[in-house]
Amino acid sequence: MAATAGRVIPCKAAVAWEAGKPLVIERVEVAPPQAMEVRVKIKYTSLCHTDLYFWEAKGQNPLFPRIFGHEAAGIVESVGEGVTDLKKGDHVLPVFTGECKECAHCKSEESNMCDLLRINTDRGVMLSDGNARFFKNGSPIYHFLGTSTFSEYTVIHSGCLAKIDPSAPLDKVCVLSCGISTGLGATLNVAKPKKGSTVAVFGLGAVGLAAAEGARIAGASRIIGVDLNPNRFSEAKKFGVTDFVNPKDHGKPVQEVIAEMTNGGVDRSIECTGNINAMISAFECVHDGWGVAVLVGVPSKDDSFKTKPINFLNERTLKGTFFGNYKPRTDLPKVVDMYMKKQLEVEKFITHRLPFSDINKAFDYMINGEGLRCIISLDE
Amino acid sequence: MAATAGRVIPCKAAVAWEAGKPLVIERVEVAPPQAMEVRVKIKYTSLCHTDLYFWEAKGQNPLFPRIFGHEAAGIVESVGEGVTDLKKGDHVLPVFTGECKECAHCKSEESNMCDLLRINTDRGVMLSDGNARFFKNGSPIYHFLGTSTFSEYTVIHSGCLAKIDPSAPLDKVCVLSCGISTGLGATLNVAKPKKGSTVAVFGLGAVGLAAAEGARIAGASRIIGVDLNPNRFSEAKKFGVTDFVNPKDHGKPVQEVIAEMTNGGVDRSIECTGNINAMISAFECVHDGWGVAVLVGVPSKDDSFKTKPINFLNERTLKGTFFGNYKPRTDLPKVVDMYMKKQLEVEKFITHRLPFSDINKAFDYMINGEGLRCIISLDE
Ligand SMILES: NC(=O)c1ccc[n+]([C@@H]2O[C@H](COP(=O)([O-])OP(=O)(O)OC[C@H]3O[C@@H](n4cnc5c(N)ncnc54)[C@H](O)[C@@H]3O)[C@@H](O)[C@H]2O)c1
Ligand SMILES: NC(=O)c1ccc[n+]([C@@H]2O[C@H](COP(=O)([O-])OP(=O)(O)OC[C@H]3O[C@@H](n4cnc5c(N)ncnc54)[C@H](O)[C@@H]3O)[C@@H](O)[C@H]2O)c1
Ligand SMILES: [Zn+2]
Ligand SMILES: [Zn+2]
Ligand SMILES: [Zn+2]
Ligand SMILES: [Zn+2]
Repeated sequence: MAATAGRVIPCKAAVAWEAGKPLVIERVEVAPPQAMEVRVKIKYTSLCHTDLYFWEAKGQNPLFPRIFGHEAAGIVESVGEGVTDLKKGDHVLPVFTGECKECAHCKSEESNMCDLLRINTDRGVMLSDGNARFFKNGSPIYHFLGTSTFSEYTVIHSGCLAKIDPSAPLDKVCVLSCGISTGLGATLNVAKPKKGSTVAVFGLGAVGLAAAEGARIAGASRIIGVDLNPNRFSEAKKFGVTDFVNPKDHGKPVQEVIAEMTNGGVDRSIECTGNINAMISAFECVHDGWGVAVLVGVPSKDDSFKTKPINFLNERTLKGTFFGNYKPRTDLPKVVDMYMKKQLEVEKFITHRLPFSDINKAFDYMINGEGLRCIISLDE
Repeated sequence: MAATAGRVIPCKAAVAWEAGKPLVIERVEVAPPQAMEVRVKIKYTSLCHTDLYFWEAKGQNPLFPRIFGHEAAGIVESVGEGVTDLKKGDHVLPVFTGECKECAHCKSEESNMCDLLRINTDRGVMLSDGNARFFKNGSPIYHFLGTSTFSEYTVIHSGCLAKIDPSAPLDKVCVLSCGISTGLGATLNVAKPKKGSTVAVFGLGAVGLAAAEGARIAGASRIIGVDLNPNRFSEAKKFGVTDFVNPKDHGKPVQEVIAEMTNGGVDRSIECTGNINAMISAFECVHDGWGVAVLVGVPSKDDSFKTKPINFLNERTLKGTFFGNYKPRTDLPKVVDMYMKKQLEVEKFITHRLPFSDINKAFDYMINGEGLRCIISLDE
């Protein structure tokens, strides 16, 4: 165990004191991990839309002060009681959803929606005792998604940590702990396009481009990118997107445009927008007989998915996925291995780098839609 | 070739002269089969709801006089030019949808929706020349679904005939050419429940009971039958249905009732009602993480399927099927073999038998909801 094990660690963290206000780098205290918990030294973190949404807290439960961050990579500092599969020095990816390996979901081959450690955006404390592990002058600071990676040290449930190949560069693979794996897995694990097939991707943000990367890896012959924002199209070329459709350029529903381009519809489609109309179009643009559509985007609470049932009876399939159907502990290490074997290209998702002190700039990039992923180095 | 080959055959047929009026057994002339067509001596036919709907012609295009019938078994009398895989004496099941073996659907492993020979309820003539093969006093009589099995002889496209084991009893396997295979295939080919899983079946008519039979064959541990008509429940016990739910008996949506009965939802559900509310319930009653719902029932034109997209994102799958995803020529002979090997129980679907002269009684049974299938013997 480290010299710090069992003790409170004082360190730097970027604290969100109020909704929508710039984060403040503060000295905070991080309590030791309790039973089944692990304290991790975060090396790199990136920013994902989910951080932004909950920081803006428009509509969501505001919970402040809070330490955001859930896409990251780090090294185990110490482990709490009962943690047997992780030890000091292990390289890990924290994940916003977990894998207890005991519940019906964890035991099912098909599901990754662990009953115990499933994503919980409202909880700002640890599961075991309902307390925070972060303090500033004795007052608790709330956690986010059980990860809170905008801190030099953080405490995470051991079921939410994927132990990865220690030779993997943490400043790259950190992006695999949320959005990229979500899009990639949506294609590879759920849509499963066959070699030579046609794939439509709705929404060309990081998640959609990762879905396109999945289609490239699967050997799709044609990848049709759909986005309302034409600026997304130049970036998308790097991801093997062969055709672009902007729904705004057409006087008819985009599903009809795609059906005409593809002799009846695409073989697979993956929706990565969160927009309900895109969800419906993504379903209706797949070919009858064998088409499969996969929903990834997170919808608004009151959205209703509507379509004629005959679209199903004509042998189309509609599925949804959470975190690309990857089981965090079982499968993420394999995604890292795909990168190490050069099957998966991660570099092209990384468009910016910043030292920890400039973390607020990463929020600006995202708000302005600049680039895809910004890597924040906690050591700088 | 038969002595009758190449000649017009005079024979008996049950002609529907007007919508909703009793059929009349008439002497008609049946022209020889043209290129790619086959003339079949029908031995047994049964009545399916689709015959009833188009005979009633409420909403559908009325096309009269017409010879109905599409669930049947017969023997090849003669074949037209170019037919190489069928010959006089072969035992066949006519099917309302075909398999050309050339189109993208026929070449796909996943689809059975042949581009050339897909079901067409509006066409009352042969595909090749747009003419009928049935005549009465020189005037044509329309075909139905390309099969028209309420006739001692009928002409059918060779792509709509499944050649079966000649030792299979035609008075039993005739029911495998439509509804029973539809329900059975919906479970075995599309829902694919694993051994020990829980299955809900919505609608306990012949199609739904065949879906339950599929669940029994697959080794389901629990089969929950859902129907608004409590009379269906006693029959259903013979089909291995273990639990019954009548939505009318509960003050909350049936999907909630089922979720409570099954600790979160069934593993698989199959909708065999044609009612849009049942379709929605069938989807929403499957378990998150792995649940799969399959739509079989034919909806009304203006129905809209509505659900919250989060139900998909929680890793539920919705599929639809046409004819249980069976390819008529490739797969139906195997369904007959399942019966011959005693894996599939067909007898329990057959609740009535009638001579051809009493065919109108079969309509009465169906209208009154008496029994499941009535076998009509053309030789009697
Ligand atoms: N299911 C999960 O586990 C998971 C994980 C991470 C992100 N997500 C979700 O995935 C979605 C995409 O995330 P992102 O980070 O790539 O977002 P993003 O905002 O970077 O990209 C979304 C893109 O969709 C486009 N778009 C919006 N409406 C559209 C429409 N109607 N038609 C076509 N394009 C449209 C936008 O122009 C944008 O380019 C979000 O809803 C996010 O919440 C889900
Ligand atoms: N897809 C295909 O290839 C194919 C082939 C044959 C039949 N079908 C369709 O399958 C469906 C069933 O056919 P069938 O011959 O068994 O019909 P059926 O009328 O004998 O049985 C339907 C049953 O559904 C029940 N029902 C109706 N609404 C319900 C609801 N809201 N909740 C629960 N139960 C409800 C009825 O009480 C009835 O018992 C029909 O829609 C038919 O058109 C489809
Ligand atoms: Zn679990
Ligand atoms: Zn994220
Ligand atoms: Zn075909
Ligand atoms: Zn039928």
